[in-house]
Amino acid sequence: MVNKRPLILVTNDDGINAPGIRALIEVMLTLGDVCVVAPDSPQSGMGHAITINDALYCNQIILSKDALHSEYSCSGTPVDCVKLATNEILKRKADLCVSGINHGSNSSINVIYSGTMSAAVEAGTSGIPAIGFSLLDSSLEADFNPAMKYVKLIAEQTLKNGLPTGVVLNVNIPKLNSSEIQGIKICRQANAYWKEIFDKRTNPVGRDYYWLTGEFVNQDKGKDTDEWALEQGYVSVVPVQFDLTAHHAINELNTWDF
Amino acid sequence: MVNKRPLILVTNDDGINAPGIRALIEVMLTLGDVCVVAPDSPQSGMGHAITINDALYCNQIILSKDALHSEYSCSGTPVDCVKLATNEILKRKADLCVSGINHGSNSSINVIYSGTMSAAVEAGTSGIPAIGFSLLDSSLEADFNPAMKYVKLIAEQTLKNGLPTGVVLNVNIPKLNSSEIQGIKICRQANAYWKEIFDKRTNPVGRDYYWLTGEFVNQDKGKDTDEWALEQGYVSVVPVQFDLTAHHAINELNTWDF
Repeated sequence: MVNKRPLILVTNDDGINAPGIRALIEVMLTLGDVCVVAPDSPQSGMGHAITINDALYCNQIILSKDALHSEYSCSGTPVDCVKLATNEILKRKADLCVSGINHGSNSSINVIYSGTMSAAVEAGTSGIPAIGFSLLDSSLEADFNPAMKYVKLIAEQTLKNGLPTGVVLNVNIPKLNSSEIQGIKICRQANAYWKEIFDKRTNPVGRDYYWLTGEFVNQDKGKDTDEWALEQGYVSVVPVQFDLTAHHAINELNTWDF
Repeated sequence: MVNKRPLILVTNDDGINAPGIRALIEVMLTLGDVCVVAPDSPQSGMGHAITINDALYCNQIILSKDALHSEYSCSGTPVDCVKLATNEILKRKADLCVSGINHGSNSSINVIYSGTMSAAVEAGTSGIPAIGFSLLDSSLEADFNPAMKYVKLIAEQTLKNGLPTGVVLNVNIPKLNSSEIQGIKICRQANAYWKEIFDKRTNPVGRDYYWLTGEFVNQDKGKDTDEWALEQGYVSVVPVQFDLTAHHAINELNTWDF
């Protein structure tokens, strides 16, 4: 019976001490054996970065003889954490990888910047069913309690049903009380972009520098998008693929004059 | 007539002094006005990372009164460079963004780790036709001459035809002599992954650390993939999209028990 308990890999991009990953670990311990391999410091906005030119350090921080719950803190990016976990730390292939719960939205185009989602995608490339969870509240004091019911439900269904080949899930949860959340909607990624506004300043020795800030612009009025669902109070679930081929464009490109 | 010359933004992930971007600039100067905004140091494997928690520095390094050719060196990632260029440096929207020529392959699944391709994708999210170019030779002494004919041809065709909405191009060029290159093939991304092999070592004060290394595993026998085309001596062109929605999975997920 021991081997029937699923093995769940947990990671994130806000760092191993963030409240979001603590909430995620709490839920996952109700579903299976948990191995946490997460960055030792915040890694937001790292996208699918990997560490090529630096050494990676990885320390076990919780020792558990029964292997129900172990934790490793890693000096690398979220994707490095997944690679270390799957190739070096875990004794067998994980049954599920969950990433998050991110402090802040990863809906729409944010998926491409997100370390949280890149960790899930990385697990997906190794054939592990994977889910990134994000709460639309960037505060370190965010209340993750209303989210936990949906995190558990979606993880349970993923363990039960598996995921289509080459697909991982991008789950975003609105900043609402339990009674206000309307349920779960399967969505497509809204067509949106960031319009950057650089905050230009001068440092004490007279050199100009910039802070990257930006404004999210949603160009998509569709009622089947993650942005729409979140605005209506739903938890959005977008199936995300890592075959980036724009298959519909191949015929057009074949008409070009090469 | 002056305004008829296209404005071309050039970036990369190997850094502004890499031979690959020098070759790319040389080609682009035959096609239009060139503005280079590129990282001041190598940024390989940075994926779609952005700099949120650090200041960004950006220095103009070539001054040109006629604005035919300007260059800026930036402390950030490739995606930061594109954001700075499009929002702060360029006086009008670029007609084309080219990234590379990368020293090494960005075919197949490498697209998701690639700073070169992420820069192109970032430009694409702002509606700028964009292309990432990579040569299958990681050496700093790589010969970019055979590649330049194809770089020019693909850039010219992109300026002439535009690209479908939401699509950028991932171009990989085999390490071959001019006479050996077979031409250009429009392809899909091969289904492949990296099997990591961590090289574990101990530092002088007794702490274990890892180097990330890996083996590329191509599971895809299709004759319409970029890997196949490159093996046959073709330049591969994959149309890449940044709507990551796995549309085919939506119906299946809608049958789940939520």
